[in-house]
Amino acid sequence: MFSVYEVIKKKRDAFELSDDEIKFMIDGFVKEEIPDYQMAAFLMAVFFRGMSGREAMVLTECMVNSGDRVDLSAIKGFKVDKHSTGGVGDTTSLVLNPLVAACGGIVAKMTGRGLGHTGGTVDKLESIPGFKVELPKERFIENVNKIHLALISQTQDLAPADKKIYALRDATATVDSIPLIAGSIMSKKLAAGADGIVLDVKTGSGAFMEKYEDAIELAKTMVEIGELSGRKMVALITSMEEPLGYAIGNAIEVKEAIQTLKGEGPKDLEELCVNLGANMLLISGVVATVDEGKEKMRNAIKDGSGLNKLKQMVEAQDGNPEAIDKPNELLPKAKEEIPVLSPKDGFVEKINALEVGLAAKALGAGREKKEDVIDLGVGIYLKKKVGDPVKKDEPLAIFHSSDKKRHEEAKKRFLAAYKIGDKKVPSPKLIFAKVDKNGVEEY
Amino acid sequence: MFSVYEVIKKKRDAFELSDDEIKFMIDGFVKEEIPDYQMAAFLMAVFFRGMSGREAMVLTECMVNSGDRVDLSAIKGFKVDKHSTGGVGDTTSLVLNPLVAACGGIVAKMTGRGLGHTGGTVDKLESIPGFKVELPKERFIENVNKIHLALISQTQDLAPADKKIYALRDATATVDSIPLIAGSIMSKKLAAGADGIVLDVKTGSGAFMEKYEDAIELAKTMVEIGELSGRKMVALITSMEEPLGYAIGNAIEVKEAIQTLKGEGPKDLEELCVNLGANMLLISGVVATVDEGKEKMRNAIKDGSGLNKLKQMVEAQDGNPEAIDKPNELLPKAKEEIPVLSPKDGFVEKINALEVGLAAKALGAGREKKEDVIDLGVGIYLKKKVGDPVKKDEPLAIFHSSDKKRHEEAKKRFLAAYKIGDKKVPSPKLIFAKVDKNGVEEY
Repeated sequence: MFSVYEVIKKKRDAFELSDDEIKFMIDGFVKEEIPDYQMAAFLMAVFFRGMSGREAMVLTECMVNSGDRVDLSAIKGFKVDKHSTGGVGDTTSLVLNPLVAACGGIVAKMTGRGLGHTGGTVDKLESIPGFKVELPKERFIENVNKIHLALISQTQDLAPADKKIYALRDATATVDSIPLIAGSIMSKKLAAGADGIVLDVKTGSGAFMEKYEDAIELAKTMVEIGELSGRKMVALITSMEEPLGYAIGNAIEVKEAIQTLKGEGPKDLEELCVNLGANMLLISGVVATVDEGKEKMRNAIKDGSGLNKLKQMVEAQDGNPEAIDKPNELLPKAKEEIPVLSPKDGFVEKINALEVGLAAKALGAGREKKEDVIDLGVGIYLKKKVGDPVKKDEPLAIFHSSDKKRHEEAKKRFLAAYKIGDKKVPSPKLIFAKVDKNGVEEY
Repeated sequence: MFSVYEVIKKKRDAFELSDDEIKFMIDGFVKEEIPDYQMAAFLMAVFFRGMSGREAMVLTECMVNSGDRVDLSAIKGFKVDKHSTGGVGDTTSLVLNPLVAACGGIVAKMTGRGLGHTGGTVDKLESIPGFKVELPKERFIENVNKIHLALISQTQDLAPADKKIYALRDATATVDSIPLIAGSIMSKKLAAGADGIVLDVKTGSGAFMEKYEDAIELAKTMVEIGELSGRKMVALITSMEEPLGYAIGNAIEVKEAIQTLKGEGPKDLEELCVNLGANMLLISGVVATVDEGKEKMRNAIKDGSGLNKLKQMVEAQDGNPEAIDKPNELLPKAKEEIPVLSPKDGFVEKINALEVGLAAKALGAGREKKEDVIDLGVGIYLKKKVGDPVKKDEPLAIFHSSDKKRHEEAKKRFLAAYKIGDKKVPSPKLIFAKVDKNGVEEY
């Protein structure tokens, strides 16, 4: 038996903890044998001292073992998943997963609703009339075995230890610790049962990891945790300096996803999906190289097989596939579309992605609390991104708005997020680096 | 109103806290509006980030304000106090305070019993037949006004916030943080009401601050806290590499104090008392220089006025003053005096003071828990100290023992504390440095 005091002190004094010591702390805390205040001191010590890859892996496994594991064994083949650390206007899941399934990958994804600037992927899918995000497990498995794609809502209690620890971190300023973030994300991913995971680690003004070095560190830790747990892992470090694509909302992001699957979407969104998907295909063993994967992904856009896969999924989950053909008519709409105008001539020099996300949330596109109801029709459609020239009174964005008061608040926030300068600046780089078990490759 | 989260984060990120932020944390914790777990995270952040002198002073003042303050205003003149950070065989209080009072200083000391290798000063005084350590406040004040000296037991609830915070630190590995240690000590000292305080900050194997640099840092922080709170402060950094003097116990330390007041005590104990006392006289304004103070202290030994002052105090507190003249007859005694023999020829190279202290505690000289009863007669009387030559089977010490089983355990511990080598080593240096508002002066 260990002493909690000694384990806290050991971490505080920068010694590496044994597997059993970590297990003792996490299990003891879950069983409420270790009080909050000792765990809080431990977490702060971890904040300052960090954790080795092995320590982070053991922490993660302990959190996985505290709850259910999703059993995907009835699904044949290599199940691949993607996880993004979260950004603004991140429509990738709706584009990427159909493309990967169309290319021969297998996507059996369970995902949370989450709190954020907009809803999560399942919220966005709910804008499609009839679409069911909750399926009985048998039907979920049957669908994946048949069309290689299902996206449903997570209902099982995955990694409850993480939930309990996260609540404590949230109250004690110990959230932004890389091993703790990595453990929190990976515990839910490992419990979700995929054989391989591609991580999209965002960095920049709209990302949780603002600094590039922190993003790299987080990616390395997550890749190490996953590999040590027997999963195939790749992480891409990507830009969240400005919102991804043009749409930030729910229904309007679904429309943008459809456009992108048709090859008519924003280039940054398409490029990111092609790169993430290529790596998903690579670790799935569908392709031999990333370039081959990219080629395959681009073809699935050109030949419409990705869009067709999305339609198949909508149909398989009781949605109306016609909504994919006629999104402007069949998806939810806001009451009004109001342009927000540039206050001056110049070039877009910077967009604070976080603030744009918060503006979308202010419009009603996201949740503050779990119980909040999302307005699926509202959102922000950008007309100008970094590097674009703009004239005074030309629209910077179109607000899809349903509430005057909310609109005014959101508009104020939105305008403050734009910096318009005198000189043209280049568009921000999209993909900075790739991290896998072989190390970091910078682009 | 502040956010607890933001204050924790601010300290975590190495920013300096405002007075109000510190007050908010301490007051909120005492009122139980701030939960243990947030305080624990805060304390761990303080452990890693430290505190400025001003921050430590504000923390200390908040802890003082959480409870009573001893009101010494009815005592005329400058009240001077001494505090030691704790060592082994530390008989200074019983020697020093009578000497200082004999030289014209004013000592109105209230002190706790404490947990330690031996009892506290009041426990030691209780070996004197009839001696009352609890006096009504009026009598305490009357005694000090009359003879300039009283040593009584602390009964008021001083700095309860410190007690509450200390209990949390003790469970969360946040005890050994210099600003927190300094705040804890100084909150009780400031509440105790003295106008000036001389600190004896021990360093070495038997001290809480093993490292010299840490002792200096602690001394600087305490001096700064005291000065910022309007007290006159001096700290001496002194050696606790081996026990101070020869006696470690209660009655045997009283005997040693009497010998020292007669000029027949151990030279290290006498030297330390002379130096601490000279600084007490200096800040009291009784002397103009430390050298003058030392001279005065030495004279009070030579002319017997210090011993006489002790007798006056014993009488004033209802003790039998004859016990001071005939300590061997009138003070408590252990059942047996058993020599502990050297296992070999050589020179004493090192004595682990902490282990010798624990051996004395094992004999029954100290408390583990508040409720434990001390055996006032038992203790260890050293015959050999560092640098002394020793022959095989010559006594290293005389154990004053009352219990065979305890004796055996203590003996084992004691022998392991002695390192006997082949070459003579010099006696350890006794006083390393002085710290006051002007800075550090190394000797």
